[in-house]
Amino acid sequence: MNLIEILKNYKKGKITTKQILSYLQDYPYKKLLHTTLDIHREIRRKVPEIIYCLHKTETQLIDIINNLKKFHNLVIGTKLEKEKYLKIKHKIPPQHIYFEDAKIIAVGKIPKVKKGNILILTAGTTDIPVAEEAKVICELLGSKVYCIYDIGVAGLHRLNEALSYIKKAKVIIVIAGMDGVLPSVVGGLAKVPVIAVPTSTGYGANFNGLAPLLTMLNSCAAGVAVVNIDNGFGAGYIAHLINSNK
Amino acid sequence: MNLIEILKNYKKGKITTKQILSYLQDYPYKKLLHTTLDIHREIRRKVPEIIYCLHKTETQLIDIINNLKKFHNLVIGTKLEKEKYLKIKHKIPPQHIYFEDAKIIAVGKIPKVKKGNILILTAGTTDIPVAEEAKVICELLGSKVYCIYDIGVAGLHRLNEALSYIKKAKVIIVIAGMDGVLPSVVGGLAKVPVIAVPTSTGYGANFNGLAPLLTMLNSCAAGVAVVNIDNGFGAGYIAHLINSNK
Amino acid sequence: MNLIEILKNYKKGKITTKQILSYLQDYPYKKLLHTTLDIHREIRRKVPEIIYCLHKTETQLIDIINNLKKFHNLVIGTKLEKEKYLKIKHKIPPQHIYFEDAKIIAVGKIPKVKKGNILILTAGTTDIPVAEEAKVICELLGSKVYCIYDIGVAGLHRLNEALSYIKKAKVIIVIAGMDGVLPSVVGGLAKVPVIAVPTSTGYGANFNGLAPLLTMLNSCAAGVAVVNIDNGFGAGYIAHLINSNK
Amino acid sequence: MNLIEILKNYKKGKITTKQILSYLQDYPYKKLLHTTLDIHREIRRKVPEIIYCLHKTETQLIDIINNLKKFHNLVIGTKLEKEKYLKIKHKIPPQHIYFEDAKIIAVGKIPKVKKGNILILTAGTTDIPVAEEAKVICELLGSKVYCIYDIGVAGLHRLNEALSYIKKAKVIIVIAGMDGVLPSVVGGLAKVPVIAVPTSTGYGANFNGLAPLLTMLNSCAAGVAVVNIDNGFGAGYIAHLINSNK
Amino acid sequence: MNLIEILKNYKKGKITTKQILSYLQDYPYKKLLHTTLDIHREIRRKVPEIIYCLHKTETQLIDIINNLKKFHNLVIGTKLEKEKYLKIKHKIPPQHIYFEDAKIIAVGKIPKVKKGNILILTAGTTDIPVAEEAKVICELLGSKVYCIYDIGVAGLHRLNEALSYIKKAKVIIVIAGMDGVLPSVVGGLAKVPVIAVPTSTGYGANFNGLAPLLTMLNSCAAGVAVVNIDNGFGAGYIAHLINSNK
Amino acid sequence: MNLIEILKNYKKGKITTKQILSYLQDYPYKKLLHTTLDIHREIRRKVPEIIYCLHKTETQLIDIINNLKKFHNLVIGTKLEKEKYLKIKHKIPPQHIYFEDAKIIAVGKIPKVKKGNILILTAGTTDIPVAEEAKVICELLGSKVYCIYDIGVAGLHRLNEALSYIKKAKVIIVIAGMDGVLPSVVGGLAKVPVIAVPTSTGYGANFNGLAPLLTMLNSCAAGVAVVNIDNGFGAGYIAHLINSNK
Amino acid sequence: MNLIEILKNYKKGKITTKQILSYLQDYPYKKLLHTTLDIHREIRRKVPEIIYCLHKTETQLIDIINNLKKFHNLVIGTKLEKEKYLKIKHKIPPQHIYFEDAKIIAVGKIPKVKKGNILILTAGTTDIPVAEEAKVICELLGSKVYCIYDIGVAGLHRLNEALSYIKKAKVIIVIAGMDGVLPSVVGGLAKVPVIAVPTSTGYGANFNGLAPLLTMLNSCAAGVAVVNIDNGFGAGYIAHLINSNK
Amino acid sequence: MNLIEILKNYKKGKITTKQILSYLQDYPYKKLLHTTLDIHREIRRKVPEIIYCLHKTETQLIDIINNLKKFHNLVIGTKLEKEKYLKIKHKIPPQHIYFEDAKIIAVGKIPKVKKGNILILTAGTTDIPVAEEAKVICELLGSKVYCIYDIGVAGLHRLNEALSYIKKAKVIIVIAGMDGVLPSVVGGLAKVPVIAVPTSTGYGANFNGLAPLLTMLNSCAAGVAVVNIDNGFGAGYIAHLINSNK
Repeated sequence: MNLIEILKNYKKGKITTKQILSYLQDYPYKKLLHTTLDIHREIRRKVPEIIYCLHKTETQLIDIINNLKKFHNLVIGTKLEKEKYLKIKHKIPPQHIYFEDAKIIAVGKIPKVKKGNILILTAGTTDIPVAEEAKVICELLGSKVYCIYDIGVAGLHRLNEALSYIKKAKVIIVIAGMDGVLPSVVGGLAKVPVIAVPTSTGYGANFNGLAPLLTMLNSCAAGVAVVNIDNGFGAGYIAHLINSNK
Repeated sequence: MNLIEILKNYKKGKITTKQILSYLQDYPYKKLLHTTLDIHREIRRKVPEIIYCLHKTETQLIDIINNLKKFHNLVIGTKLEKEKYLKIKHKIPPQHIYFEDAKIIAVGKIPKVKKGNILILTAGTTDIPVAEEAKVICELLGSKVYCIYDIGVAGLHRLNEALSYIKKAKVIIVIAGMDGVLPSVVGGLAKVPVIAVPTSTGYGANFNGLAPLLTMLNSCAAGVAVVNIDNGFGAGYIAHLINSNK
Repeated sequence: MNLIEILKNYKKGKITTKQILSYLQDYPYKKLLHTTLDIHREIRRKVPEIIYCLHKTETQLIDIINNLKKFHNLVIGTKLEKEKYLKIKHKIPPQHIYFEDAKIIAVGKIPKVKKGNILILTAGTTDIPVAEEAKVICELLGSKVYCIYDIGVAGLHRLNEALSYIKKAKVIIVIAGMDGVLPSVVGGLAKVPVIAVPTSTGYGANFNGLAPLLTMLNSCAAGVAVVNIDNGFGAGYIAHLINSNK
Repeated sequence: MNLIEILKNYKKGKITTKQILSYLQDYPYKKLLHTTLDIHREIRRKVPEIIYCLHKTETQLIDIINNLKKFHNLVIGTKLEKEKYLKIKHKIPPQHIYFEDAKIIAVGKIPKVKKGNILILTAGTTDIPVAEEAKVICELLGSKVYCIYDIGVAGLHRLNEALSYIKKAKVIIVIAGMDGVLPSVVGGLAKVPVIAVPTSTGYGANFNGLAPLLTMLNSCAAGVAVVNIDNGFGAGYIAHLINSNK
Repeated sequence: MNLIEILKNYKKGKITTKQILSYLQDYPYKKLLHTTLDIHREIRRKVPEIIYCLHKTETQLIDIINNLKKFHNLVIGTKLEKEKYLKIKHKIPPQHIYFEDAKIIAVGKIPKVKKGNILILTAGTTDIPVAEEAKVICELLGSKVYCIYDIGVAGLHRLNEALSYIKKAKVIIVIAGMDGVLPSVVGGLAKVPVIAVPTSTGYGANFNGLAPLLTMLNSCAAGVAVVNIDNGFGAGYIAHLINSNK
Repeated sequence: MNLIEILKNYKKGKITTKQILSYLQDYPYKKLLHTTLDIHREIRRKVPEIIYCLHKTETQLIDIINNLKKFHNLVIGTKLEKEKYLKIKHKIPPQHIYFEDAKIIAVGKIPKVKKGNILILTAGTTDIPVAEEAKVICELLGSKVYCIYDIGVAGLHRLNEALSYIKKAKVIIVIAGMDGVLPSVVGGLAKVPVIAVPTSTGYGANFNGLAPLLTMLNSCAAGVAVVNIDNGFGAGYIAHLINSNK
Repeated sequence: MNLIEILKNYKKGKITTKQILSYLQDYPYKKLLHTTLDIHREIRRKVPEIIYCLHKTETQLIDIINNLKKFHNLVIGTKLEKEKYLKIKHKIPPQHIYFEDAKIIAVGKIPKVKKGNILILTAGTTDIPVAEEAKVICELLGSKVYCIYDIGVAGLHRLNEALSYIKKAKVIIVIAGMDGVLPSVVGGLAKVPVIAVPTSTGYGANFNGLAPLLTMLNSCAAGVAVVNIDNGFGAGYIAHLINSNK
Repeated sequence: MNLIEILKNYKKGKITTKQILSYLQDYPYKKLLHTTLDIHREIRRKVPEIIYCLHKTETQLIDIINNLKKFHNLVIGTKLEKEKYLKIKHKIPPQHIYFEDAKIIAVGKIPKVKKGNILILTAGTTDIPVAEEAKVICELLGSKVYCIYDIGVAGLHRLNEALSYIKKAKVIIVIAGMDGVLPSVVGGLAKVPVIAVPTSTGYGANFNGLAPLLTMLNSCAAGVAVVNIDNGFGAGYIAHLINSNK
């Protein structure tokens, strides 16, 4: 249950004053031994805190997920490796889905209604995991997404199919490694905001994504903004904000 | 006149078939000796081509402005140094405004109606020129803008005034040099997209804006995307796209 | 026994002239095959030499610890991986503690009295190992420490709890990876020295801690100085010096 | 007058309720057109806001200095080039001193009592301007300072004179360009905190101070923390905080 | 006169044995005080030594040009600033042309016949000086060149005109600053070698051409090789070699 | 079968209208779930799409190879590790060769006729895998290749043997790690285009191939262009284009 | 046998004309499949070719060692990992020594006479493997070496013992990681050439040895030259050349 | 007069006890206001302190030169711009020479006897100023020097002349910008130590000398050590030490 539901239930008499007090005593944040949960964030930012799982231990993750779940209907974790997931899966609420390609876990009730129109494009096949991370985040937050993968610049005619989608989208996420050229091309065609994501796909003078990052920051096409290398989550999050803007 | 007006005037009989043909023969691009004007862009992207003046010669600028003006009601140029402006001002249409702080020139009719709600924040006083570039672009494209300058993190209580504006904005541009910290702080409070602009303000290990650029790309706050160092234009452009999104 | 105790015991007649001579013959440094122990350092700098264990072999570590122990009551080693510790634990004096999170070993008598007031703050959960290294060093050297973890800038209200501690501390260590923003925020609030520690937590354009390092070096808040990436030891050491300054 | 004096005078009846209200209405910050003065900082951090003059226009500086002066007895500005100073000197309060080497301006009453014991060492002659910046800041804030210049490592015996000062200091600032070696050497001898300042003195693979910056961040001697390249101000500020720590 | 002509004239009796000996005594290189002229290069590499004028003094240039002219029909110098040219123009053989945009000087007889088919494309107007350098070199060496300028990716339809030229060319030089995207797009369409030239046009995270350099080195399109930033000369030279390959 | 053969067979009545329609319906690209095959490329660029296998999963590779094989007589994949090859070898057409040193797979009929004259030189023994990648690509595309390995600059007389080959080649690929010096030396001797390939062989300040990359981009010898670090494929591809230029 | 011995033996009649011819036919280099042995180097440079084993395969190493051994009395290989050595040890001449710390193999007769006076100093214990590489090379080439390890700058008095050796040496190798400070200190004291070797010991802003490399290149002490990070071999080689200079 | 002469004169009675005491009271260093002269260096290192003039003010230089001159027969300053020299020339002892190309000043008696054999080679004409700096230093310190300029690798046959000098030299300085290739080539031929000096000659991906610096640090030829970019002084100094080694 999140705060609004609790307040409504209290008003309806479904929960007692004692219960609501025990719940509210943790506002605006709940301290664990190792972590300070920002349970106020959902009120402040409309989206609850999302867990960055990459460097956290399994014990920490179990602790955080179980505690956050008390305050939110849906708890989301990103960059969760499959090995780690398998070790924690029986110690967290069973109502959860693990998205293997996206490395995302969603614990709780996933919203059914998807709104708006986000388009995700990748330059190559190897950019798909980052695209999946963006896509799952968008959908978990309630946005509608359409994906077209592997339309790299070396065969620009493959962009033709994408053109009608580019015209209809409210915001476009473009993901590319290697030379990172696709966002400039798409940015030159689109009339909506483009969020560019460099990926670490490549070798040599790619320098783990530095090359496409610089390409995108210097894009000749106006209307392009950039997030961190491999940051599908960040791209999905801001695209959702733009998409749900009224 | 832009294409739509020309077509309408032709329909109304205000211009002849010969006139419209002479106009249309340049579609979709007009070649000058040194430059290929993208006069089709307004149709494709809703916004006409905007001239990047930084490395262009005066002759080139005069040529480009005068030719683009034939196809568009409003021609915009960015990164135009005052010295260069003074040398070209009498060789371009007299109906123009030069925004000195923003280093922007607007030739033609500036739209009066401003819509939506863009908030621009700067961390310091020295970030103002970049903020002015963003602000002027937003306004020339038709967006309403509110600016609050110098609310750096070293005195966070100065952020209080900004809070109510942060809550009302549809998109926020945050501009910072030095450590580039402000976008993370604002991003943690806002529920709308944040466009972060690093500036080259600083010295030593700032490396001409590299430090705030990296800070912003690594922002812990979700919902932040980044444009190039000192790129007020790019930030204003994408913020306008987000702001006018429907 | 350290030098002062030996001299006192000699004066009291508890050790003979021959014994003290054998002890003193190694001053001011004791040469091992591979290492030159700086046993004079405790006199010169008040703190005995502390062993950097990262690249040393097990044989070297056993040799160094056992030899240093002859001259000092407490021998400290940092960056000691657990695997390495398990291999040497039975070949060093049994009176020792291994701090697993901090990767520190303390051989000998740990001082009980803790003085002063050092505050350690981390931006995230994943910065805790570095914080633990700082904390254990401070305590082993005799400083009192209070820690608050995971008060990152994305949820600034979590800083509120820390405010009263910030006001009372004599020196503050602030540890952050990703964007490295927290030291600037704390530095803007504190009236005591802030030691900032960038961590290698992050990915992509974080470049293994380069991003937060640059952020901290460019901090807009005065009163902040920086140590190496992940250098919890260095931060703890200088914080202790500041804390025990009279 | 600063806040405490105003309150005392009000209590003594020297200023009226109307006067104090007009003064207090600007708390906690005073907005100018371009700048938001943090007049609350003196209460929060014991030291008033210090103006970073490097990229500010003359008009902005005059405006800021004159406004800040209303709230504080002493207004300090750093990185003020002589040419700029000469242009503003007659438009700011006449009771001021310009420190040419240090590029610092102090407007108002400079404290006479200097306390504690800060030692400033430079490796070379060309590091002196940075040292002067540090020294003037320390003295303006009320700390006692002793300076020894040009004791570079290429002639280590020159360090001998410094040794007795090193033993007596409460905190040491060590400034070096080129190879940046001096802080490591001093750090190995001192038992108090060392603040290291890399300077941009050098050429070639010095990369404008990057070389000594990295040297200092990697110092083998514990007890060393680093500030930005050429940041004499930052070093002086934190050294003063350490020196006045109780 | 070059070596072949001299030998032929000697055979025909037009020059004496003494004359040819005085000429040949300098083979294979002619030493000046400051420079060692590689007069053997024309035989070895088909193209005579070309002078890199950037850091040379005027005296050196006059000396080199006049001496090289004795051995070759055509002497070429690159990266010669106009100011320098004006100072040396009366001290070198009058039969010369200075190409101002290309910053190239050609002393002697320029070949009239141009062969093959080199296409030069630029992304922007500001890339023209580099393109001119490439073009003049190609033509001086005897290649036929066609140029299309300013067909940047932000308006890809401008590429249409270029398409027929792309199909007919034997080799294509593509020049771009900012994001450096054009070579990848052209490389995906062409069936001949593409030589990519990054330019230093741009600002901020462009890092003086590093961004487009990395883009081009990582090009997803096969068939692209890269020369140094702003190296129009190098691109023209290798394009000529490819174009005249049999 | 490729498109030309299909059309010819259709004309000859060997395949039915229904068959050719089913084949043509995929033009100009065939969409798989994860990949968009550019089957049009062979017509456009003379060379079919070549698969970059490095980051692709085994399932993706099997899928791509089997689908591409339907449209082309020869399908090529690069950077295929032996482990990955062993896992997919029984799920792809049996008529294939795996080149272990070159890490290249060729599925289908390899052309027998080799034309022209490409010379491949390496500076060291450890550059051979990159050379093999270049060589196999050249041969699969139909070029004749001659290789001389390990003629590093530290023993320049070893270059003598290569000299006669240098004179006869139509294009030369020069591969070097460490200091990357060989292309400059060869470039100074050759009269044909030189394609330089830096390799990541080396350690320390080699920075994984950055050192030879910079060396080659700055080559004093004209006629040298560069591809990405370790990009034997790219070098072979453009060398083949130059070699088969008419 | 090396060339001189062979010639002498031939003169003495110990080997036949046929034998010497078969030997000489490989001059000045012997081609293997993968490697071109520079057997002329011993005559040209006094020292035979030394094998860099790092990236070579076992088959290549066995082949190279066995072939080189035919032409030289002593064959040396560097950077040979123990695992690799164990795999090749029975396939190379049994008269060899493997130096485990130095990762060097010496096949054949090691010279007994050591001349001159090379001093090797390390800053830390973890720099010893690089020092051992330098030491073994010096000794194999015939130089006398004295080593003092772990005299880091954090305890400068440990340098005292070294002082008398510094005065007597003909050349000094100084090896340091972390801040790389020791060469500057030694350089300020010595009157002979100092060869500085940065090591990759350290973490964080050490950037794998970049920090000490820059420190050493910027050394304030004249008389210091630098070799690559971890390049003990290179330092030993040039030190031997200096030491054996007459 | 230097110390030895003073002592001899005192012994001979030419100077009084009072005179020698006044002289000796400054040992081992003489403090000026801004500088600490290391007058002990000549005894310790055989060469007196040499002044680095680059960032010093004119007043400082005059002060330093005049004071050092009291203790040494010859005072040397490097990196002295002509403009600065012209301003100080009448305020320093008239017995001095200013070497304009080398930017070196020598005040006092220059030694006539030159010993040994140092060879200086440059790759290009534009490397000459750095070579002159090295040459003048060598000669002022008493070494014999021979220079050959502009023998770049693009025309390797120009190296032939140098070969006989390479064989006779005791140490070789090789200076190169651009690709920095020459030291590797020379190092492969020489049997004496090679000191490599990268210069900042070049543009684009040269990065002000970074490219040749990395080339030289990674040299495949053993026997090469490197000094800082443009550091002709450092190369000359260590070459002199090697040359005068006994």
